Amino acid sequence: MSHGKQFTLFSHESGPNGWKVAFVLEELGLTYESIYLKFQKDEHKAPEHTKYNPNGRIPTLIDHKNNDFAIWESNAIVVYLVEKYDTEHKISVEGSEERIEQLQWLFFQASGQGPYFGQAGWFTLFHPEKLPSAVERYQKEILRVFGVLETVLSQREWLVGNKYTVADISFIPWNQIAVTRLVAGYEGFNFEKDFPSVAKWHNKLLAKDAVKKVHAVRDSLQ
Amino acid sequence: MSHGKQFTLFSHESGPNGWKVAFVLEELGLTYESIYLKFQKDEHKAPEHTKYNPNGRIPTLIDHKNNDFAIWESNAIVVYLVEKYDTEHKISVEGSEERIEQLQWLFFQASGQGPYFGQAGWFTLFHPEKLPSAVERYQKEILRVFGVLETVLSQREWLVGNKYTVADISFIPWNQIAVTRLVAGYEGFNFEKDFPSVAKWHNKLLAKDAVKKVHAVRDSLQ
Repeated sequence: MSHGKQFTLFSHESGPNGWKVAFVLEELGLTYESIYLKFQKDEHKAPEHTKYNPNGRIPTLIDHKNNDFAIWESNAIVVYLVEKYDTEHKISVEGSEERIEQLQWLFFQASGQGPYFGQAGWFTLFHPEKLPSAVERYQKEILRVFGVLETVLSQREWLVGNKYTVADISFIPWNQIAVTRLVAGYEGFNFEKDFPSVAKWHNKLLAKDAVKKVHAVRDSLQ
Repeated sequence: MSHGKQFTLFSHESGPNGWKVAFVLEELGLTYESIYLKFQKDEHKAPEHTKYNPNGRIPTLIDHKNNDFAIWESNAIVVYLVEKYDTEHKISVEGSEERIEQLQWLFFQASGQGPYFGQAGWFTLFHPEKLPSAVERYQKEILRVFGVLETVLSQREWLVGNKYTVADISFIPWNQIAVTRLVAGYEGFNFEKDFPSVAKWHNKLLAKDAVKKVHAVRDSLQ
């Protein structure tokens, strides 16, 4: 690639999952060029992108120092990055059982948080008709997921291995959207009061240098 | 545990994700006792289960030969089982890049297939009001996912590594429910005609001895 950086990251200016990968790249000090695909022009479904990712969604990562190895699904990308480049375990665990627990939380994020929070966003912002019972279904699911996290984080500081890891990082984008938009006005929702441990954890994550740096980039694009 | 088998599997008589784990346990010749939780009695949310799984969903697996190590999220369980017990790579790949590709498909199944197919089921069967535009949203997403799989499987027999793996196995339960129920009557849907490579792959998966054995157990419970 002509940009001279190790990775090309296909991402989107506002969609949540590309930032997750950027957080991890920043934490590991890896160089990358972001290409923000224009969804309104269907660039994510164009052959230049689907030749790497048949699902036609973002993010997609190309590792130019590994024979242009292409990988999609944000949490598979995250696992690739820490297994290959986090040899000092700055943001990942190392024992075999802890690695499975880290993976467990990544799967919970990918299957239990992302899609459901995303449906709350869909029915709030994009669905062609107003369906209050559908919106409410997903707002309640957001609160249920926050409840699961509260149960765990009221007893420990981080999700896995008593340390900050990609398991925690993976939850940042959708939790931020949920708190600021999706349940912000839902039945007196008060993040700090209703889910104090989750709120504390979320705020610690937002204060990480790598996260602040990526968010500054994101905000400059809006 | 008094049952004398290596694993306890918390599952459900009809929910899809527990069977996925059973397929893998059968393929690897591992012994397990299934406990089918009664959702109508909220057994999945009872302390006897949530002490292992704070998410209160199934499946949850306990490995009695590994200090009662407890793991939840079906695809994290699947990865645990093949990493620890599929040392001969009967149903898993072994190269580091191929392992990431296997994981990529597991994440696509967990985030792109399961939740969306599940929402089609929800709005068809359980939602308190009829919302045709919500049902249609998810039926269309089922067809989109089948289209992604068709693109890939029209060019190769299995998802990863030119062999039958857990990546393929993970798609069985929701694909079966989709084909037989969720899109069976949708705008002239014809699985073999519309998605010939996916249909062929799906039927090969259904014909596996381990899958047939587990399905016989499932059908005996209905």
